[in-house]
Amino acid sequence: MPAVPIAGTPEQPLYRRVADRVAGLIDAGTLRAGDRVPSVRRLSRQLEVSVSTVVEAYRLLEDRGMVEARPQSGFYVRPAALRDALEPRRSSTQATATVPEIDDFATRVMKEVTEHWEGVSFGSATPNATFLPVTKLNRLMSRVVRLRPDTSASYDTLAGYAKLRTLIARRSLDAGCALEPDDVITTAGAQQALAVCLRAVTKPGDLVAIETPTYHGLLEVLQALHLNALEIATDPREGICLVELEKALDKRKVAAVALIPSYHNPLGHCMSDDDRSQLVKMITERKIPLIEDDVYGELPHEGRRPRACKAFDEEGYVMLCSSFSKTIAPGYRVGWAVPGRFREAVERQKFRLSISVATPTQMAIAEFLADGGFDRHIRRLRRNYRDLSYRYAYTILDAFPKGTRVSRPSGGHVLWVEMPEQIDSTRLYDEASNEKIRFVPGPLFSATDRYRNFLRINTAKPFSDEIERALQTLGKLASKHR
Amino acid sequence: MPAVPIAGTPEQPLYRRVADRVAGLIDAGTLRAGDRVPSVRRLSRQLEVSVSTVVEAYRLLEDRGMVEARPQSGFYVRPAALRDALEPRRSSTQATATVPEIDDFATRVMKEVTEHWEGVSFGSATPNATFLPVTKLNRLMSRVVRLRPDTSASYDTLAGYAKLRTLIARRSLDAGCALEPDDVITTAGAQQALAVCLRAVTKPGDLVAIETPTYHGLLEVLQALHLNALEIATDPREGICLVELEKALDKRKVAAVALIPSYHNPLGHCMSDDDRSQLVKMITERKIPLIEDDVYGELPHEGRRPRACKAFDEEGYVMLCSSFSKTIAPGYRVGWAVPGRFREAVERQKFRLSISVATPTQMAIAEFLADGGFDRHIRRLRRNYRDLSYRYAYTILDAFPKGTRVSRPSGGHVLWVEMPEQIDSTRLYDEASNEKIRFVPGPLFSATDRYRNFLRINTAKPFSDEIERALQTLGKLASKHR
Repeated sequence: MPAVPIAGTPEQPLYRRVADRVAGLIDAGTLRAGDRVPSVRRLSRQLEVSVSTVVEAYRLLEDRGMVEARPQSGFYVRPAALRDALEPRRSSTQATATVPEIDDFATRVMKEVTEHWEGVSFGSATPNATFLPVTKLNRLMSRVVRLRPDTSASYDTLAGYAKLRTLIARRSLDAGCALEPDDVITTAGAQQALAVCLRAVTKPGDLVAIETPTYHGLLEVLQALHLNALEIATDPREGICLVELEKALDKRKVAAVALIPSYHNPLGHCMSDDDRSQLVKMITERKIPLIEDDVYGELPHEGRRPRACKAFDEEGYVMLCSSFSKTIAPGYRVGWAVPGRFREAVERQKFRLSISVATPTQMAIAEFLADGGFDRHIRRLRRNYRDLSYRYAYTILDAFPKGTRVSRPSGGHVLWVEMPEQIDSTRLYDEASNEKIRFVPGPLFSATDRYRNFLRINTAKPFSDEIERALQTLGKLASKHR
Repeated sequence: MPAVPIAGTPEQPLYRRVADRVAGLIDAGTLRAGDRVPSVRRLSRQLEVSVSTVVEAYRLLEDRGMVEARPQSGFYVRPAALRDALEPRRSSTQATATVPEIDDFATRVMKEVTEHWEGVSFGSATPNATFLPVTKLNRLMSRVVRLRPDTSASYDTLAGYAKLRTLIARRSLDAGCALEPDDVITTAGAQQALAVCLRAVTKPGDLVAIETPTYHGLLEVLQALHLNALEIATDPREGICLVELEKALDKRKVAAVALIPSYHNPLGHCMSDDDRSQLVKMITERKIPLIEDDVYGELPHEGRRPRACKAFDEEGYVMLCSSFSKTIAPGYRVGWAVPGRFREAVERQKFRLSISVATPTQMAIAEFLADGGFDRHIRRLRRNYRDLSYRYAYTILDAFPKGTRVSRPSGGHVLWVEMPEQIDSTRLYDEASNEKIRFVPGPLFSATDRYRNFLRINTAKPFSDEIERALQTLGKLASKHR
């Protein structure tokens, strides 16, 4: 352990920086499975921090599943280290365009994983209420409906609640965008943003290029709009293969490209600035709109949020879609689109689908953004999601059959799990349901017949013995497939 | 005046029943324009009610624009009696199917009439906030988010908030329907209900039979879904011509029928039970879904609400769509669908368009329904809308060029105005905008080039000198067209 003193920052408290230092040694292989980590006293002297700080740091590593305490002996590196684990493999580009077929199985799964039930659900990618600022939000909701009773009960304008659009525009500076309030149109969540943006720039039968795997809700929108999907090879670290995307754009008539560049669902990667810049140049030259799903953009596991593709967009071909469903309150159904040059058409489609967005929920979220609590809240959320991501990944590696690969997301709150080939996640889904456990099976993330041995796990739920047992049960059930 | 004593009911206070008795005499022509109505004392003796009741009754007739007080002399029947006025003519069936073209003009109008602005708007069919139970609703909203913080912030289920669905099912008894909570799916307003129901039973290019004129928002949904419209002759008293509808269904492949049988927008008629029964039989025999837009169903001007077509539906081919936007709070965006045999598909489409409906707004409306205030509120609303409908109609007949015809809605809160043929409501729209007055021009209510000399006036706004002046200005501007 190099004897370099470290200090905390508002972004990272001191014990977290200590923990990350030790985690780095484990990840790099300097400390290996079964090794004893430096004693509390020794590390406290080396790093010039208090004993209690080191204890807190080790507790955190224990929470993440990286070390385990042995009575009377200290902390040891756990056997299943993420470093040793393999990540899911890069996917391949699909040869032909496909109409996403949402079959009865997918329909049933989506219905079941969104139900309220008494079992353990790793299903929909939803933050648990314990992570949401519900008390504050409720206070603000009560206040806005009292102070502006008529406004809150009346139809909002087509574009959306003005104060909220102003605050969204202001916050988008963090994503490298310089927006006016009028560039923003609010929507009933990001799902509606995707639907209206895609609808504004396509017609039935058109072809849309997407990552593979990708968010099943996007495939459902494509299906609902009678669009064809072209799946492009995607790497769980780097994102979509731009070479193959460019080939596809040159070979076929593609009406739109729809990607999740920031903490991709389900892969977890984040596109680099260089790739974003190159991507935006590529679509702008060809005048093809890029739908950028940015719902996880505010949720890096470390450091600042990435720049959006929208930040590189000079000609208005990028249509950014996002929401507060992963950060403030999914139940409020408040999202937005920044549709660039397609603004008029998007506003029109929004009117057609639902006239306007609910007013009181927009007002409450605007107050939450204005009130200044958002940044603190989001910092806490990022740390929580980071820790949970480790914790779930370690547990899965421990519990699942040998050969299982787990994604290493750099943000967001889902894990993409590639199991050995003989394991059928659709069969596993029903077996797990019988044990009161749910997840989303891999095939739902593709318009073709892929990812049968994959599954997605939502990690935005406090870790507990119940969660651990459920993951162990899943692993056991999977082991029986052959 | 027959000397029959009358009594009040919870539904109609005494003075209103007195007023309606006199209004009946005017409507029937027994009392004519310029006639003096019976003196207060005389009527009080004849009907065995107090003097103050008669005074209140005459004030109400004055508010409706039916009588006018002349100093020292009593009340007189006003010149422009609705009885003498003609109603808009029956429309005709369109020969060929049309893709509704929403042109730039229509786009601009819809944007402008939904803006918040400082002028007088007769534009969107929205209840003014003074008619909404905002104070009570806000109190309930504050309570639900406080009592159930986690639920209110979290995703609702696909089908919708269970308590609300139960209460909707219960209330639907008034419309003659016996529903289970699971028959109901909540939506982001009736507009989303229309969109998901139509989408569930059609594919691009399909043909949908509709009334003409019809709600422009329905035409927009058809256009968004790439559906063709077939406009069927509709009478402003009787509703759609069932003979012509049947001919069309036999001649063409019609994928769905989409009607507004209760207090049609913009015509105001209400289909009879016999017609509803015949209609449901007609579509059921042919296995063609009927989308029934019932948003005004709770707003009869007299008596009980009509039975819905859904009440006659034994095989599940009727898809009822409604909302609380005309009765409780448009800004809450809470509506519902009762999709009969197409339930699964509708739920699916709802997920695709916006995952779920906002939770806190559904909870607040459920509390409002449960709390027992809804019936009282709706009784008051019906009376207000009835009075306003008269008042606006009289004023329009006074102010508009000779030959103007005004609809006589039996419920709801819009008037359909047919002006002499030389008057161009699209030109009038721009002229009126310059005078800070807005309305929806007739052509927006058809998929073909019709109703150029028509306009729709929303009457759900307290009558005032400003409103009166605005209607007079509209009339003057119209008079200049030749």
